This record gives sequence, structure tokens and C-alpha cells, in this order.
Amino acid sequence: MNNAAIIIIGNEILSGRTLDKNSNFIAKRCSKIGIALEEVRIIPDIEKKIIKVVKEFSKKFKNVFVTGGIGPTHDDITAKAIATAFKRKLILNKKAKNLLIDYYKNTHFELNKSRMKMAYLPAKSTLILNQVSAAPGFKVKNIWVMAGVPKIMQSMFLNYVEPKLKKGKIIIAKSVKVDIPEGDIVDILNNINKEFVSIEIGSYPFFLPPKVGTNIVFRSKDNKLLEKCIKKFCSILKSNGIFFSVAKSI
Amino acid sequence: MNNAAIIIIGNEILSGRTLDKNSNFIAKRCSKIGIALEEVRIIPDIEKKIIKVVKEFSKKFKNVFVTGGIGPTHDDITAKAIATAFKRKLILNKKAKNLLIDYYKNTHFELNKSRMKMAYLPAKSTLILNQVSAAPGFKVKNIWVMAGVPKIMQSMFLNYVEPKLKKGKIIIAKSVKVDIPEGDIVDILNNINKEFVSIEIGSYPFFLPPKVGTNIVFRSKDNKLLEKCIKKFCSILKSNGIFFSVAKSI
Repeated sequence: MNNAAIIIIGNEILSGRTLDKNSNFIAKRCSKIGIALEEVRIIPDIEKKIIKVVKEFSKKFKNVFVTGGIGPTHDDITAKAIATAFKRKLILNKKAKNLLIDYYKNTHFELNKSRMKMAYLPAKSTLILNQVSAAPGFKVKNIWVMAGVPKIMQSMFLNYVEPKLKKGKIIIAKSVKVDIPEGDIVDILNNINKEFVSIEIGSYPFFLPPKVGTNIVFRSKDNKLLEKCIKKFCSILKSNGIFFSVAKSI
Repeated sequence: MNNAAIIIIGNEILSGRTLDKNSNFIAKRCSKIGIALEEVRIIPDIEKKIIKVVKEFSKKFKNVFVTGGIGPTHDDITAKAIATAFKRKLILNKKAKNLLIDYYKNTHFELNKSRMKMAYLPAKSTLILNQVSAAPGFKVKNIWVMAGVPKIMQSMFLNYVEPKLKKGKIIIAKSVKVDIPEGDIVDILNNINKEFVSIEIGSYPFFLPPKVGTNIVFRSKDNKLLEKCIKKFCSILKSNGIFFSVAKSI
């Protein structure tokens, strides 16, 4: 199975201070390249919790994306936790060290001992380069560890993670917006469901009075079948006098 | 421990189509009333996965908040999954039925069989009323099940869940914005950490050039100690010529 899961490490998410947008970014990219994202876990900056989830997910999923906790401060414990999880030493990675040296040469900041902490990674890590601020993420086994800052995480993911992931057959998602509440189209949906069993059909009501209605999302790897299913659904809506609009691919 | 966890049920979150804002809302409310949110899990609309996580969390946490999957359509399987998890029957809840009857009397929509499905709840559920669109959430054991639509979930939480939760001592969070990268204040932070061991100190860099800096968040139940710690931190910043600003309580 070409599947994946995300681990978000961050007290700031659990306290409500920060809205997590990293998992949505990764989720969208996974959809685009045909990887099935099966779970997201948001956990606190507690080493033993990180170790437990990392070990569990490493066995369960083909790819595990981790964000957060790789900076220079006392609360950045991800590298150490992952080294412990896989019984590897935390060592000064020479390539990471050189990246930091090159980067800080050209800034007015000093590559002090604290910053050098960011070059200590689990032994035999593969680097995930950071085009924004040099300090790299890393990959151990099937665990991809990226920064928590969205701008840096996104750059790491797009430039160094995604190109190395095995692409799957893309799940195409198309949606139809229906101008009535979902409670009025359940029978229609059930019939469509029975006729097109291989298509995943989701019903998402929205309630923003005076706008009340439902987005029906159809998902499949088979575009022809998807089109056929949507065409049938729309023809039933039409014959029932229900207003709707077909959205572009999403 | 007055702790809690959240289960977000939703393929639409895992596909990246929808950005989850429900967990951030609940996280903020938990912080406000002194409940420690310890984990968030986002899982797909798959009955056996829902059952597994609900059973695990019910044992592990004092309160479990679940959102999503309680509507009238085929993909709304939360009530059935929770009934199965706790070996209860899914029965027509009379109070829920009457709420639906009263509500639909005053709309131009029909209370059809599909909508009546929303009154089928696990036996011995306590209702969580819905001031927006009548169909209630429910509580079984320590599991609070709410709608997935944010407007409805928020109304349920504020009006019917939060008043029934045991309040804890509030964790006060205050932050100081420092106008330099976190790599330049690590030693200062480490010293403060050693002096104020009971205070949780988080360091959150931001990177929005030309704005680069760090938010330091101090969290504690003891406001006096918190103030003392922040005062000390600020005096060290000042003596090092570092610019900063103290934010209001967050």
C-alpha cells in the first residue's frame, strides 16, 4: 500500500495557540501524487511519546512525515527522540555542519554552539535540504523529519521529499455542489452508491445561512467511471428539479 | 488528571480538501478552562478504525471530543461505530426524535426517513443539543460526539459540552516576541529554564523576511511565578541589548 501518516509535534498546536496548517499542506500534496494519507497525530513535545508513535507508525505506514522540533532550543527534541526510537547514536553530521558553516558565513549571525546543535542527527540519516535557513531536516528509515515553520516545511517537502516519494495512481476528486440540505438527497446518494460501489462518495453539508447546501465529493482512480457516475448523479438531480453546479477537479 | 483528547473523523481532512479548524477551537477552549489537551487524531470514515481509537481514548483520557459523521447520509457512521465500541444498541432516541419533529415543523423541509436516522443513537446516550439545526450530538461514557460542521460544533461545545466539563486550574500563557532568531538566545533560554523549572517555556521562530524573530511562550498555573520569570527574562534581554515586546495574555 502506498500510504502515509503525519506526526505533528507541538505543544503550541495542542494549546490552541497555533492552527496547524502543515498537515493540510502535506495532505494536499499526497492527494496530488497518489499517496493515501491514513492518519494524522498531533502530540506534545514529550520524548517518550514521540518515540512511541514514531516506532508504531514506522511499522504501519510506508511513509511517515514528521514536522516540528528540529531547531536549536531546549524544546527541540525530535532528532534525539528519533535516534532513541531506532537505537541510533545522535552524531555530528558533517554534511549538515558544512551546510550551516556556508550559510552563516553569509549572514550577520554567528554559527554558535546552539546553532551547531542542528547538525547533530541520528547516525546514517539522509539529509532533507533547507533552502530557506540551511538547517536540514533528515530521513531515518521511512521517517521524513521536517521543520515546523510552514514556509520551511513546504520548501523541504516540495524540493527534497516529494521528488523521492513513490508516486501512486492519483485519486481524482470532483465535486458537485447541491443547493439543498443533504437530508433531501440521501435516497439519491444511496442509489448512486449502490450503482458505483468502487467510487468513494462523501457528503459535506455547509450551513452559512442563507446559504445552505451540500458538497458531494466523488473520488476514484478511474476518471471515466468517475465522469459516468457524476453524469448519472447530475441527471437524477435535474429530473428531480434540484439546482446544482459541478466544480472543477479538486 | 483533567486531560482530554480529540478524534476528528473525516476523509475530507485527510484528502486535504478541508483544513481542520475544529481541533484548534476545542484546543483553545480547553486552555481557557484548565483542561490539558494531550492528543489529536485525525482518522478516516472507517468504522473499525473509529471503534479502535474510541475504545483506546476512552480508557486513556478523562474527556474525549469527537467531531464529524453524525449526519443523515451513508458516510455518517459515527453513532453506529460508537454503539459498537461500547456494545450498546443503536436505538431511536425519543428526545432526539421530538427535537427533530419540532424543528422540521417550522422549516420547509420534510422530516424524512433519512433525517430521522439522526435520532438513532447508542442506548443511554445523553444528548448534546444543537441550537443551529436540531440534530443532536450525544455523550456516551466520557465520549462527547459533536457535528463536524464548525458552526454547529462550536455551538454544541460552548452551550452544552463546556458547561458540564470539570474545570481545572487554568494554565496561563504569556509570550514575549524577540526580534532576533532563536539561535541567538538559546543560552539565555537555558538559564531561565534552569531557574524556573516548573514553567513550560516554548520557543517558536518565525521566518517572514524581512521579519525574522522568535516568540517565547511561558506557561504556568502560577501567575506570580510566571510574571517573575518573564520579568527576569526581559531584564536579561535588555542587558544584552536585544529588542523585544511583551504580548498580552494569550
